Amino acid sequence: MPKKYIDLDTLKYILYDVRKLEDLLTRERFEDHDMESLDLFIESAKEFSDRELYPYLKEMDETPAHHKDGTVMVHKQVDVMMKKGGELGIISASFDYDAGGMQIPFMAHQAAVYIMDAANNHLPGYVGLTQGAAELIIEFGNKTLNETYVPNMLSGAWGGTMCLTEPQAGSSLSDIVTKATPTTDGFYKISGQKIFISGGDHQYADNIVHLVLARIEGAPQGTKGISLFVVPKNRPKADGTLEYNDVMTVADFQKMGQRGYCTTHLGFGDTDDCRGWLVGDENKGLAQMFLMMNAARIAVGRGAAAITMAAYRTSLQYANERPQGRKLTSTGKKNLTEKQSLIIEHPDVRRMLLLQKSIAEGSLSLVLLASKYHDIIHASSDKEEKEKYNLLLEMVIPIVKTFPSEAGSVSVNNGLQVLGGYGFCTDFTLQQYYRDIRISALYEGTTGIQSQDLLGRKVTLQNGKALELLAAEMMQTITQASQHPELAPYAKELASTLKLSQEILQKLMPFAMKGDYERYLSDANLFMEYMSLVVLSWLWLEMGVNAKETLASGDLKYDLNFYESKIHTMKFYFKYELPKTSSLATSLMSDEVLTIKQDKEYIL
Amino acid sequence: MPKKYIDLDTLKYILYDVRKLEDLLTRERFEDHDMESLDLFIESAKEFSDRELYPYLKEMDETPAHHKDGTVMVHKQVDVMMKKGGELGIISASFDYDAGGMQIPFMAHQAAVYIMDAANNHLPGYVGLTQGAAELIIEFGNKTLNETYVPNMLSGAWGGTMCLTEPQAGSSLSDIVTKATPTTDGFYKISGQKIFISGGDHQYADNIVHLVLARIEGAPQGTKGISLFVVPKNRPKADGTLEYNDVMTVADFQKMGQRGYCTTHLGFGDTDDCRGWLVGDENKGLAQMFLMMNAARIAVGRGAAAITMAAYRTSLQYANERPQGRKLTSTGKKNLTEKQSLIIEHPDVRRMLLLQKSIAEGSLSLVLLASKYHDIIHASSDKEEKEKYNLLLEMVIPIVKTFPSEAGSVSVNNGLQVLGGYGFCTDFTLQQYYRDIRISALYEGTTGIQSQDLLGRKVTLQNGKALELLAAEMMQTITQASQHPELAPYAKELASTLKLSQEILQKLMPFAMKGDYERYLSDANLFMEYMSLVVLSWLWLEMGVNAKETLASGDLKYDLNFYESKIHTMKFYFKYELPKTSSLATSLMSDEVLTIKQDKEYIL
Repeated sequence: MPKKYIDLDTLKYILYDVRKLEDLLTRERFEDHDMESLDLFIESAKEFSDRELYPYLKEMDETPAHHKDGTVMVHKQVDVMMKKGGELGIISASFDYDAGGMQIPFMAHQAAVYIMDAANNHLPGYVGLTQGAAELIIEFGNKTLNETYVPNMLSGAWGGTMCLTEPQAGSSLSDIVTKATPTTDGFYKISGQKIFISGGDHQYADNIVHLVLARIEGAPQGTKGISLFVVPKNRPKADGTLEYNDVMTVADFQKMGQRGYCTTHLGFGDTDDCRGWLVGDENKGLAQMFLMMNAARIAVGRGAAAITMAAYRTSLQYANERPQGRKLTSTGKKNLTEKQSLIIEHPDVRRMLLLQKSIAEGSLSLVLLASKYHDIIHASSDKEEKEKYNLLLEMVIPIVKTFPSEAGSVSVNNGLQVLGGYGFCTDFTLQQYYRDIRISALYEGTTGIQSQDLLGRKVTLQNGKALELLAAEMMQTITQASQHPELAPYAKELASTLKLSQEILQKLMPFAMKGDYERYLSDANLFMEYMSLVVLSWLWLEMGVNAKETLASGDLKYDLNFYESKIHTMKFYFKYELPKTSSLATSLMSDEVLTIKQDKEYIL
Repeated sequence: MPKKYIDLDTLKYILYDVRKLEDLLTRERFEDHDMESLDLFIESAKEFSDRELYPYLKEMDETPAHHKDGTVMVHKQVDVMMKKGGELGIISASFDYDAGGMQIPFMAHQAAVYIMDAANNHLPGYVGLTQGAAELIIEFGNKTLNETYVPNMLSGAWGGTMCLTEPQAGSSLSDIVTKATPTTDGFYKISGQKIFISGGDHQYADNIVHLVLARIEGAPQGTKGISLFVVPKNRPKADGTLEYNDVMTVADFQKMGQRGYCTTHLGFGDTDDCRGWLVGDENKGLAQMFLMMNAARIAVGRGAAAITMAAYRTSLQYANERPQGRKLTSTGKKNLTEKQSLIIEHPDVRRMLLLQKSIAEGSLSLVLLASKYHDIIHASSDKEEKEKYNLLLEMVIPIVKTFPSEAGSVSVNNGLQVLGGYGFCTDFTLQQYYRDIRISALYEGTTGIQSQDLLGRKVTLQNGKALELLAAEMMQTITQASQHPELAPYAKELASTLKLSQEILQKLMPFAMKGDYERYLSDANLFMEYMSLVVLSWLWLEMGVNAKETLASGDLKYDLNFYESKIHTMKFYFKYELPKTSSLATSLMSDEVLTIKQDKEYIL
């Protein structure tokens, strides 16, 4: 196994120096923390990952979770992840003190889990979903629900899930049919099927607490008639013992990747004895669930960014060790008396490595940006500030979910290619990362759904205010960069690409205004690609400015090459990736309509 | 399992109507064949694939080839593939009569094997390599070698392989060290290790005939000192029985995909009793091996094109059956009283399907184009014509190898996405196609190597004559298309992209001329992408012209929608794919040099 699955210097550089974690600590919410304690928290996550997560990465792929005798059998490290994760505060660290948390900045928490994702992406989901489920109970549940469930979840003794998807509905939540029948005993009878439930059951949990979307009999049609319920696998009785709650584990989906992270099919109320407890008000379930959705989508992006990083580090190590071929001489031939070059010396290999580096580090920067917005929203008492960062967060969420997933897949693909034939062999982890990361573009809303969200909802939010705010953030970096002669050309390029995005919207908006939403959204996916390139170029320019100014200051935490490599990678992104916006613009602004179904079927 | 893994109508349309197989039959070499007999040959391949290949696709993935007791255990269908493949003439069909073949056009043969690849890509390689190995013996071996080995290979009783790669050398064939020591008994003693040997051993072959590159003691350095040997696993004795030839099966590489097709590690001469027989002249081994390389590279492209097609058909069937979500109404909301739409009705799903269709059918057209060039070269007695098609074939070979592999991967990725979460589950074959096709960009020279071949060797061939010839072919189609008002704008676009490729070369050539080959070739990979887009757009324009003219003629073999769908897909390719050339051109013509190693290392 390679020595390094992440570059801790780069993580700390982006978190501390670029994203400026310390700035948050002046806020009341975080006043008990200092940089030293947060650094310790991150180091402890690294130490835990080195010891308990990374060594089992391959094993978890080779011995997948599977259904057996009515439960799901998972790898023993799931137990370690849950219990030690609970101990380390990985489940509760960012929660309020009075909810049992430590009020550490979400950014620092995300950085810690990012390390774990990079070490072994099959494991952190178990605690992540438990955290999300607990947060829903804390936020919307009554005192009894809180007391009954939350402590055991935060300690990692009980797992938690979010149950949205049903076989007949998929992403179309309006079509949820799981039924909740009121009783006079304070609970509802639940019946229905849920599929693709991550962490839905395993032999190490005494209990799993499912947060289930269901429809109370007689509720309005569509998403307005969906309520949220706590439905435990085993219901706690008055004496503290557990009683089976008629939640059946029907199956565990076998997957191409992330095979250690179980994906279950659950049946509720097969013998009409499944009880659910309403969380918050009737028919508010979807809105409540979606309050957690932003964090869930950041988590998907974070996981993908981490796999991308691990794959990059692995292929980089290989490229630095493997000799093959020779440099071309000025006659176009090779000098065979020379010993073979390391493959990192070949331009095409360097191109693949720089592509990976730009995507891996850029994705990390993006994930931490969204996390910082999340922190400001939760720490601010200023209504206007809260509103501003809320809009900024809403704007970037679909991109944070999508870019690391999609570009990350491309990046890992290049990492695999760096290893040549060995990349395809199971002796090396590149092929596993390639399989593992592929689920990210499907989790928590596919790329298609994120793209519709971006163009259909976020761009139009408050008449375009969210987009304006984001553009203003970018302009600030552009202005800064323009003051450095070396960076000014890149700043100019980004500005013109940003301007072109406005022209694209001016071309598309009239379709929405005249009610032709299908046409307006038909190329939403391309618009997502366009905006992702713009945002990532912005974040690289921001990193370039930071590196440049640090170099000028002479106050270097890392060596010279470290900062220069950031500027170099920024240039790479601008040379090889940003230009893709021009072709996307051509396609987006074309008047040809080819993907909207007409009377005849042309797809044969 | 889905009903259709290929669309036979499209295959026949491209082979018969676009690529005009019948035109070949006027040539002497093919005079015994008519369209009916060739159609029968193709139908028999389909029938065989339906019955013996496709039903085992999933099983072969789930029970991979593996090393056991000194041999490799493979799925029982390998036996069927070899023996029935031999019977059906799949191994020998395109060979000369006097080599035991049927002299059928290579194009028709490739079309037949394409069907088999689409049905089950784990199997045709076994016969393909046997065919290649036999061809080398037929072409360069003496009478004894021919008589001793070829008949058993053509019948499928014995397998064949090509042994190039060694652990320390990888793609760098100059570094081959496998040793051949002359004896006075007419053979050489062989010793060395070969890795990544496809079809290198299995329990169903009485014998495997390895075609091995090795270095005779004292031979010149580099590729000029490599000779070709026949090294059987078991050597035939005078009495016809077989004797073990000290070829040890060391291991079988376990892979992410194409797991039913074994990839072996072989050790030659562990007990100093491995005999090899020289094929042709000393030190000519690499040139001889490369005579087969064009066919091998077409085969890789063909296999990738076939997997792409199978994945497309599978996702198309799913999209036509799966209801989910609803069309947006003019208020931007959905009408919940409507029943759910089929997902094929959503523009984003249609985009993914059309992308797949354009890549799958375009790749097929490309593979058959190269095959036709191959046929003309072999059937022509006109020196000038031979020379022309030789250059055209050389020009397109790296693209035929690369485009179906790289774009095919992207295409299958989109197919998987069409199925949403199910695409990632092992119950569906999309995830398998996604894994299987990934090897194509590595086989027989990676994409990096093909790109160097394209820009470094093919573009400069005879002072650019090969590229000129290809451009002339394109111009012919452009002229034709310009005469149809509906197609003229596309013709114009292709012409200007072709022109831009010249400007790119004018920008790059001076680097080569002043001996800076590293700079000249540093972005060869992007040039490959550029030229692939140009060539594919050309082939789609050609298909558009054919469909248009067929519609005008009124003489339709298929229904109206069939032809209109070809024109529609052509338009799709021009709207969504061809524009990518403009960003590639920007990157290619940039003066920034970022991927050539300087004194400092920036990739950290």
